[in-house]
Amino acid sequence: MSPEAYLQRKSAARANRAFYDALERLDLDALRVCWLDDPSVKCVHPGGELIVGPERVLEAWRRIFENARPWRFELVDLDLEVAGEMAWANQVERLHVVLESGVLIAESAATNLWVRREEEWKLVLHHASPIARRFFED
Amino acid sequence: MSPEAYLQRKSAARANRAFYDALERLDLDALRVCWLDDPSVKCVHPGGELIVGPERVLEAWRRIFENARPWRFELVDLDLEVAGEMAWANQVERLHVVLESGVLIAESAATNLWVRREEEWKLVLHHASPIARRFFED
Repeated sequence: MSPEAYLQRKSAARANRAFYDALERLDLDALRVCWLDDPSVKCVHPGGELIVGPERVLEAWRRIFENARPWRFELVDLDLEVAGEMAWANQVERLHVVLESGVLIAESAATNLWVRREEEWKLVLHHASPIARRFFED
Repeated sequence: MSPEAYLQRKSAARANRAFYDALERLDLDALRVCWLDDPSVKCVHPGGELIVGPERVLEAWRRIFENARPWRFELVDLDLEVAGEMAWANQVERLHVVLESGVLIAESAATNLWVRREEEWKLVLHHASPIARRFFED
């Protein structure tokens, strides 16, 4: 891997983590900066339908933030590909939600698609889907 | 849109449809041709975890095909973006499954990410997630 490719990879991974940092802080302004300001941007929440366009995407996050309790996003098995001006990150989002009764853990499989614009990686697509698990009791 | 961009868009849409045609025919060989032959290719089935690499991806489809009944994939709200050598298609996959008792319809939100190699579009990522619906009885 060339030094340039290595640096692009590092910066894409940093942008990808900054997205989850904005989610953890419930920071809509920081979240807006993560996304490309383009009508084509797209978002699918677990169990949800496709949402298109920055305003609709941010409105959906705003509603999620309104109901959010303290949470953390642990990224498991992060796998990042970079090809030219595009990068895509796949990971398990292990969401830890702090409830009064304890901590709820939920996992989603997520794809984040990034495009590089003026040396910054911008999110053009976030697709998260629930991971179905079987639980067995003794 | 330039004639070249228009043609790239058309060819990406054709590749995207050919992927579903291969699924409908339960044709593993045709399905293999759709994918880039690269260890980085990725697939998430509805409710499933990330699968990485062509052999594992095709093995998962083989198991799905084994249990498949006659089915058709209707693509709803197809939205295709092309940027250089990459293209991504988002759509609702409306799956019609023919059962003895009637036709089951299930919908998934799907992202397909394509890369152009030697004038052919090759699939590098397929991510499909269940769409949760609420049903109300009178």
